[in-house]
Amino acid sequence: MKSRLNVGVIGLGRLGRVYAEDLTRHVTRANLIAVADTRADVAEIFAREYGIRKWYDNHRDLLSDKDVAAVAVITPTSTHKEVVIEAAREGKAIFCEKPISLSIAEAKQMLETVERSGVFLQMGFQRRFDAGYIEAKKKINAGVIGVPVLITLISRDPFAPPLDFCDPKASGGLIIDMGIHDFDLARMFVGEVKSVYATGGALAYSEMKSVGDIDNALVNLVFENGCLGVVQLSRNAVFGYDIRTEIWGTQGSLQIGYFQHTPVLVMTKEGITHDVVPHFMQRFEKAYRSQIQEFVENVLNGAQPSITGADAIAALQISLAATESFKRNLPVTLGMEKHEAGVS
Amino acid sequence: MKSRLNVGVIGLGRLGRVYAEDLTRHVTRANLIAVADTRADVAEIFAREYGIRKWYDNHRDLLSDKDVAAVAVITPTSTHKEVVIEAAREGKAIFCEKPISLSIAEAKQMLETVERSGVFLQMGFQRRFDAGYIEAKKKINAGVIGVPVLITLISRDPFAPPLDFCDPKASGGLIIDMGIHDFDLARMFVGEVKSVYATGGALAYSEMKSVGDIDNALVNLVFENGCLGVVQLSRNAVFGYDIRTEIWGTQGSLQIGYFQHTPVLVMTKEGITHDVVPHFMQRFEKAYRSQIQEFVENVLNGAQPSITGADAIAALQISLAATESFKRNLPVTLGMEKHEAGVS
Amino acid sequence: MKSRLNVGVIGLGRLGRVYAEDLTRHVTRANLIAVADTRADVAEIFAREYGIRKWYDNHRDLLSDKDVAAVAVITPTSTHKEVVIEAAREGKAIFCEKPISLSIAEAKQMLETVERSGVFLQMGFQRRFDAGYIEAKKKINAGVIGVPVLITLISRDPFAPPLDFCDPKASGGLIIDMGIHDFDLARMFVGEVKSVYATGGALAYSEMKSVGDIDNALVNLVFENGCLGVVQLSRNAVFGYDIRTEIWGTQGSLQIGYFQHTPVLVMTKEGITHDVVPHFMQRFEKAYRSQIQEFVENVLNGAQPSITGADAIAALQISLAATESFKRNLPVTLGMEKHEAGVS
Amino acid sequence: MKSRLNVGVIGLGRLGRVYAEDLTRHVTRANLIAVADTRADVAEIFAREYGIRKWYDNHRDLLSDKDVAAVAVITPTSTHKEVVIEAAREGKAIFCEKPISLSIAEAKQMLETVERSGVFLQMGFQRRFDAGYIEAKKKINAGVIGVPVLITLISRDPFAPPLDFCDPKASGGLIIDMGIHDFDLARMFVGEVKSVYATGGALAYSEMKSVGDIDNALVNLVFENGCLGVVQLSRNAVFGYDIRTEIWGTQGSLQIGYFQHTPVLVMTKEGITHDVVPHFMQRFEKAYRSQIQEFVENVLNGAQPSITGADAIAALQISLAATESFKRNLPVTLGMEKHEAGVS
Repeated sequence: MKSRLNVGVIGLGRLGRVYAEDLTRHVTRANLIAVADTRADVAEIFAREYGIRKWYDNHRDLLSDKDVAAVAVITPTSTHKEVVIEAAREGKAIFCEKPISLSIAEAKQMLETVERSGVFLQMGFQRRFDAGYIEAKKKINAGVIGVPVLITLISRDPFAPPLDFCDPKASGGLIIDMGIHDFDLARMFVGEVKSVYATGGALAYSEMKSVGDIDNALVNLVFENGCLGVVQLSRNAVFGYDIRTEIWGTQGSLQIGYFQHTPVLVMTKEGITHDVVPHFMQRFEKAYRSQIQEFVENVLNGAQPSITGADAIAALQISLAATESFKRNLPVTLGMEKHEAGVS
Repeated sequence: MKSRLNVGVIGLGRLGRVYAEDLTRHVTRANLIAVADTRADVAEIFAREYGIRKWYDNHRDLLSDKDVAAVAVITPTSTHKEVVIEAAREGKAIFCEKPISLSIAEAKQMLETVERSGVFLQMGFQRRFDAGYIEAKKKINAGVIGVPVLITLISRDPFAPPLDFCDPKASGGLIIDMGIHDFDLARMFVGEVKSVYATGGALAYSEMKSVGDIDNALVNLVFENGCLGVVQLSRNAVFGYDIRTEIWGTQGSLQIGYFQHTPVLVMTKEGITHDVVPHFMQRFEKAYRSQIQEFVENVLNGAQPSITGADAIAALQISLAATESFKRNLPVTLGMEKHEAGVS
Repeated sequence: MKSRLNVGVIGLGRLGRVYAEDLTRHVTRANLIAVADTRADVAEIFAREYGIRKWYDNHRDLLSDKDVAAVAVITPTSTHKEVVIEAAREGKAIFCEKPISLSIAEAKQMLETVERSGVFLQMGFQRRFDAGYIEAKKKINAGVIGVPVLITLISRDPFAPPLDFCDPKASGGLIIDMGIHDFDLARMFVGEVKSVYATGGALAYSEMKSVGDIDNALVNLVFENGCLGVVQLSRNAVFGYDIRTEIWGTQGSLQIGYFQHTPVLVMTKEGITHDVVPHFMQRFEKAYRSQIQEFVENVLNGAQPSITGADAIAALQISLAATESFKRNLPVTLGMEKHEAGVS
Repeated sequence: MKSRLNVGVIGLGRLGRVYAEDLTRHVTRANLIAVADTRADVAEIFAREYGIRKWYDNHRDLLSDKDVAAVAVITPTSTHKEVVIEAAREGKAIFCEKPISLSIAEAKQMLETVERSGVFLQMGFQRRFDAGYIEAKKKINAGVIGVPVLITLISRDPFAPPLDFCDPKASGGLIIDMGIHDFDLARMFVGEVKSVYATGGALAYSEMKSVGDIDNALVNLVFENGCLGVVQLSRNAVFGYDIRTEIWGTQGSLQIGYFQHTPVLVMTKEGITHDVVPHFMQRFEKAYRSQIQEFVENVLNGAQPSITGADAIAALQISLAATESFKRNLPVTLGMEKHEAGVS
């Protein structure tokens, strides 16, 4: 068992910086020794501020750095294929943020290279590391709610991303971009999905239409075991970040999620008021940290990845099928999709 | 303006007795002067206990009673057509519990007779009289959440009805029997429904299959104004009666519903626990009372019915389309149904 | 067992009208056959509206009415002595609203007459009939929280009564007027009180000082069994009516009370908001009804009163001792009071 | 402005390790370069695990270390005087955990030395750094609840500390040991305390009596501005760690605190259940981190301490007066104490 893992972070966008800061400050048994970003100044400034020894303006140089044993790939989705395949060829252990790709074919190509190279690959779906979801999974395994029969998953952002982020060519569209988290959880809690049906619209922000995206969607799921599910996606939860999951079993239900952010209740003539979780970092700050810590432990301990490439492909398949269903206004059976949505 | 309304109640099942008791004890400006039930002893015992002057073992005798000015029709759905049509011909003001019928053709026939007779008809959808739903409607009208774009409606019973009640020939099946309340609310809050898609299954009680019913269903709605909706129906909320509605607008959301029944929180080593609303009478006791009170007032004051026959037909149409969608596993556009579900 | 009880209500103030309406509309096995109020027009109008046969402009005439078997005494506290004593002499079963009196000597005199006359007397402390308090008592008896060791009782009004109601000569002052409910509950849950210490002030409404009353108080209790308690009284819960009790035992705690009145949660950029119980009638509507119903049953069934005159005196003694403690700024041991507070 | 502060931690008990870990992993602009504990092995093991360069088996050696610019004193209260005075003489910036001492005379001696030496001293009351308390203070300053008139503070531990920790000679007794946090908050929110009255008892754990401590107490406060307060202390909140504060103003109220720890609600036939904050580290983990971070910033930036020695003495005075009041069963006016409780 090695004592510490030398890690490099590729991509210093909002989320990349979170992972890099976690690896520097809070994660044990890891040394963040290198960062890379195509914006050279971003990489340098970040590296200097956090005392990171090396910085690069491209992922290739970082990947060929022999001191780096593992990389976290937090780049735009469209670049995942190239970066992950090169990382695998360089023999690095790989952590890759979701979604693995917008294309099943691409994703499969990535996994083949990873497998051939024999490197470790773990996918990022941070909600699985949230205390609430962990506890819910335990309770279900312990039989607390009997057999699950129905799952409801809500993901609502307090505002829409900048329009260019919403371009389905880059993001895959709302159903992939937001929904993939919920599809992953649905699989974790209930099992494989057999068919999907989705409706949606640009109902709150008409400018969404100009880039071809929507801001609200409902995705029905039928699981292979006969269970039912529905995923509710929205960009206009103006009050805050609203992430809820309910799992309904034969003997009870579980609700995961919470609203109140600051533990203060204000009681005035206007009623009783509290604030709300502002956005995803406030909700999943600890989960992101646990996730990258667990990646480090898994690599150092020679353990299996907790979230595999196959998991990533399964969640992507549901996302794509749902996107296709929305476009065709018909239920779509998985494995029977006509074409891959979002990249057509 | 007349000062008091002489009312007769037809049908003394569980809900009929509730209306009759409300009319005797709690409703002002009404005299319950007659009850009818095909079980003569039930009618007599009830009448004696509540001091009601007249009782009948059939609805015809009650309807031909000249002292009776108004009737509440709380009989099995399959008899609504006959009773309502005769009541109309006798010139009675009519309150009819939902659903109006399981057949659109039948329902239209009923409304034609009502119209020709010029009698007052008000339909029963008690949730509209719940303080929560009333307040939510007010807040939406006041613009508190901007423009509604998505609605979620949950109806969950704590247990399944006796199997013979579940026979879709009598009940119409889960989607009609339970869902019609939610479809009515959906219309009230968002508008007319354009198309539906439903999935479902007998997932908690396998004996449901023997009568051809299901115990869980998800119904997606697309409204004519482009908004989205989902209705979640379940018979296995073993913890209690779970009725929730969420309306998501461009400027905020409203959640209607509550869980805690008795205002006691128990804090022990097992955690913090409270009880739950047991069943629909505990949840909607006051709404049922307000509803029949308002019917009495509307008749006495010559006001318009707050819930019309057209409302009843609209909710039935959504229910039937959703049932058909479930059976065919395809989205169904309203007005384009192939055949009437539940009575095929 | 008689089948119905002929009742008269004496005093048609706000609360008297509530009891009278309950007896007319909602209570079973009772006939409200007479009302009395010193304001003749109030009595007549009320009687006509509710179809009550007899009305009087003084309590004596009602008490000498041979048809009246039982009376509810809802007059100002200062008149309780006279009315209750005369009612006892007339052989009526008596329901008397709290407080029995502002003077222990007077209260004892009343009870002596009641006892000599052999009539039934039940005191009004409606909180004991609230579903929350009933359930809490059951859970404590069942050992759910082990042995109670500490009790916290909060009573907060949303606004101050009209100044003339606050005159301690009439009301006894805040600690008696509001606190007596909490002292009664404290006895019910924990046992007899040994000593008290109270602080208070006119902190929110300076005009209180002009009549010699206060608007906030804290009363510490030490029980004979060594347990501790604190009663918190306030007139400035501007957001609504705030009634809470917590009982802390060796194995857990119970919290009784709730805030939300209408089951609607509003979620906007301002946060998540709900309304609050407006005032005592919304909080204890059902408890008042149950209480007078139970009185009727107890009289008809020859049962013992659930809340006795001795209970009333015990709660009054705590109130008076606490008022004295506040005035002297010293702990006061019950039975050792120097003088009776509030009527000095 | 210096860029980083070299810190030493003295005392590696449970809380000392928390501060030391925070300083190593999470606090920015600080280097933890030395630790000291009288248990040499504890110091060495901790230092090796966290990569701290120096460790000592006594505070003197650490204090004479010229590389150490600031120290966190997390030793038993009885040693605070000696350690703080020596630290001051060595010119170190000092962070000292509450309570400063159990004796006012001692505490004043400490502050005199600190002042003479001109060193920076900041006291530890971590609740002031909790997001809830910070937000509440802001809202009060913004006038959201008008003028505060009453404050309720609850501190309840889920279990009693080991008996030897409860010896009032070491801990000062329940009222000082637990209550001092609440007295500090009371001052922060409402102002200076004029008089106190306390009751208490060994009600849940009879073995407390053997060491002369109690497990439940109620402390009434009267503030110099006339406001009222009550502090409720308990060792038997078996369900979890229960920290609540309510501030009641002329225009509204604030409640600070929360119960639910993991965001999972379990809904079964037993009702709706959630878990509870287990103990103080789960509740105040972030507050401890913010507090020591702020100390580091204040020292580096030459800012004033946010919590002064005078604050520490004021909270201690209330604690001592309350302890005396409990012993004498009389209200005690601050500045008029007969003798110092807890160390008599």
